[in-house]
Amino acid sequence: MATSTKQAYTPLNEQTVIELSQKLGLFSDYRSIEVNEIGDGNLNLVFRLVEPSTQKSVIIKQALPYAKVVGESWPLTLDRARIESDSLKKFAEFASEHVPQVLYTNNDLAVTVMEDLSSHVILRKGLIDGVTYPNLAQHIGTFIAKNLFYTSDFYLHPFEKKRLVQQFTNPELCKITEDLVFTDPFYDIETNDYPAELQDAVSELWNDSALRNKAARLKLKFLTHAEALLHGDLHSGSIFVTEESTKVIDSEFAYYGPQGFDIAHFFANIAMNHIAQRAHIKDGEKRAEYQLYLSGLIRDTWITFTDTYKELWRNEGVELATKLPGFEDEVLESIFTDMVGFAGCEVIRRTIGLAHVADLDSIADFDEQIILKKKALKLGRDWIKNKQRIKNIEEFITSIRSV
Amino acid sequence: MATSTKQAYTPLNEQTVIELSQKLGLFSDYRSIEVNEIGDGNLNLVFRLVEPSTQKSVIIKQALPYAKVVGESWPLTLDRARIESDSLKKFAEFASEHVPQVLYTNNDLAVTVMEDLSSHVILRKGLIDGVTYPNLAQHIGTFIAKNLFYTSDFYLHPFEKKRLVQQFTNPELCKITEDLVFTDPFYDIETNDYPAELQDAVSELWNDSALRNKAARLKLKFLTHAEALLHGDLHSGSIFVTEESTKVIDSEFAYYGPQGFDIAHFFANIAMNHIAQRAHIKDGEKRAEYQLYLSGLIRDTWITFTDTYKELWRNEGVELATKLPGFEDEVLESIFTDMVGFAGCEVIRRTIGLAHVADLDSIADFDEQIILKKKALKLGRDWIKNKQRIKNIEEFITSIRSV
Repeated sequence: MATSTKQAYTPLNEQTVIELSQKLGLFSDYRSIEVNEIGDGNLNLVFRLVEPSTQKSVIIKQALPYAKVVGESWPLTLDRARIESDSLKKFAEFASEHVPQVLYTNNDLAVTVMEDLSSHVILRKGLIDGVTYPNLAQHIGTFIAKNLFYTSDFYLHPFEKKRLVQQFTNPELCKITEDLVFTDPFYDIETNDYPAELQDAVSELWNDSALRNKAARLKLKFLTHAEALLHGDLHSGSIFVTEESTKVIDSEFAYYGPQGFDIAHFFANIAMNHIAQRAHIKDGEKRAEYQLYLSGLIRDTWITFTDTYKELWRNEGVELATKLPGFEDEVLESIFTDMVGFAGCEVIRRTIGLAHVADLDSIADFDEQIILKKKALKLGRDWIKNKQRIKNIEEFITSIRSV
Repeated sequence: MATSTKQAYTPLNEQTVIELSQKLGLFSDYRSIEVNEIGDGNLNLVFRLVEPSTQKSVIIKQALPYAKVVGESWPLTLDRARIESDSLKKFAEFASEHVPQVLYTNNDLAVTVMEDLSSHVILRKGLIDGVTYPNLAQHIGTFIAKNLFYTSDFYLHPFEKKRLVQQFTNPELCKITEDLVFTDPFYDIETNDYPAELQDAVSELWNDSALRNKAARLKLKFLTHAEALLHGDLHSGSIFVTEESTKVIDSEFAYYGPQGFDIAHFFANIAMNHIAQRAHIKDGEKRAEYQLYLSGLIRDTWITFTDTYKELWRNEGVELATKLPGFEDEVLESIFTDMVGFAGCEVIRRTIGLAHVADLDSIADFDEQIILKKKALKLGRDWIKNKQRIKNIEEFITSIRSV
């Protein structure tokens, strides 16, 4: 029998991260390494290590055994570090250009050493600043299509698929989504967070029993449909970009879920930016131009996604059903319908739930912020309730543009 | 560290089962124990041990590391013994009266010691013989409702539900269902088994691309929808009955799947018996009476199932969605629709696939057997293709009665 090599968890500090980098042989001159802790301290320690002479740098990320949100602190599994590094490695098997390279992981210490992406900015910040990214749609559409297809029953042997479902069982992080995305915003629950000026709109939402039932059905899909390995939290704050490069990070919510989920979160966050730009870009012409870029981003992402998915299906489908005429269209239609509903939940929870988005919250004029948040709520509600009536990506885009 | 206590697998024999019973202290006089191996030798060894002086008896079941079907032999996981005993114990938590009591399990040896049910007969035999069971509908309807509800996200904490999904991950046995129920019968695959006289009907089925797509969608549900712990093979050969008692056995196919699956298999097998009775019971009046019993069995099982499920939902629902008005009806409607489709797959595979049912195969007049098998195929096809059009249990019964 092998003796146990389990290490006791202790939080890293500026000295021990250098020792770790030395143990791993990441640099040549360890006396000169510069260390900065750049995490927000709420969930993870994030150290950036730079060797000045070579300008070589790495990120050492360590999960903390708790989460802090608005002053509250609650215990949170360290297993999320394993999920994050395992999922990044799995995504790298087919889309290595769109995830940071994982250099080392230690599950006992909840540590991941990975490629430094400091040359990139967080997409949410870029979108709020009105920056356009010409390759983003192509990159994200490809990334999502490959992840979904290559981890699904259409491609994998069922034994391997079921092994992956077990590997990516992620109860604690899923519970956060189950509560904060699918439950709390639809009930008068204290985690919700919105200004009094939204109370009428929120009460109207809570009194809409058809909406609640539809949201409950979407939650059931999230709870039970183990279709493909998802990133699980693919909003614009989980994507690092430059003009040429797109890197998806922070995959600790990864689990086997419904295929429409990730793309829904990506689209919902672009839609919220689209709404918020009415306040951020004062020049009407410039605003119209940027909003056109955003709707094009959604269109092009969807087209890339479906084209890539269909190509993989035709060329690499293993499951016999991939040979059935028209079956990929049925699958893509149900991904689309689920996507519209999931996007609705994301917009609602980001407007009145615990975790907001800077796109809307940073609107300086409070009255304008309230008006636009009401419009966001209306859009989210419409998506959840009428998801079967929105038939294609053009109708989805129209629903955003006509807000 | 604990030292390993793993035992090497060896098949039991008449001597070693008595030694095992002695080790477990099951009897008082071990010299007198009578042993009979009553398994069919294809999948499991099944020993019945009786102590003549007390008439006390037990069953000792041991999985064999292979499966034999029509002369072929292929390796099959011993883990199915663990799945069977674990699922029987789980079912016993809420429906102990409808499963054999598990007295001992040893996963290394793939052995389960359980209550002897020799006073019961296999339901399939009883139905072929035209016997009525006045409590069967009540028992099976209750059994299925409790299993589904108490292992679902409506009742369990999501952590416990996900733990059970992992515990009951059952890739090898699920693969048998994925292949033999959902795939092979819809393609020209050599595992299929039917007489040449059915070739026209079978070819017609294979040329029906709408049917194939619907069957593929049902397979996807089986592969991905982890809604509740299923028995996984609940046909009339997996149920032991007397007039008063109903015991569900052979749960080695148990896994987390779509809620409509088990009840579909129960109904499909009753429907095939209903069809076969046209040949078995020659007296028209007696036949009509028995077929009325069979359709009543389906109706009463469904009513008991839905009543029990709704009562559990109302009284013991934990998930907030169980408080939403009308939501249980939506859930039961989708269970019903899935049921119709799954039942269709079961009827087709039992008619032309690898594993048949005695109800149809034992029809002595070959021409009549072919006629009735064609009718079964037509019914199965109709269920798969028109499952959304069959709205309620009365329409489902009508579809069987009008065969």
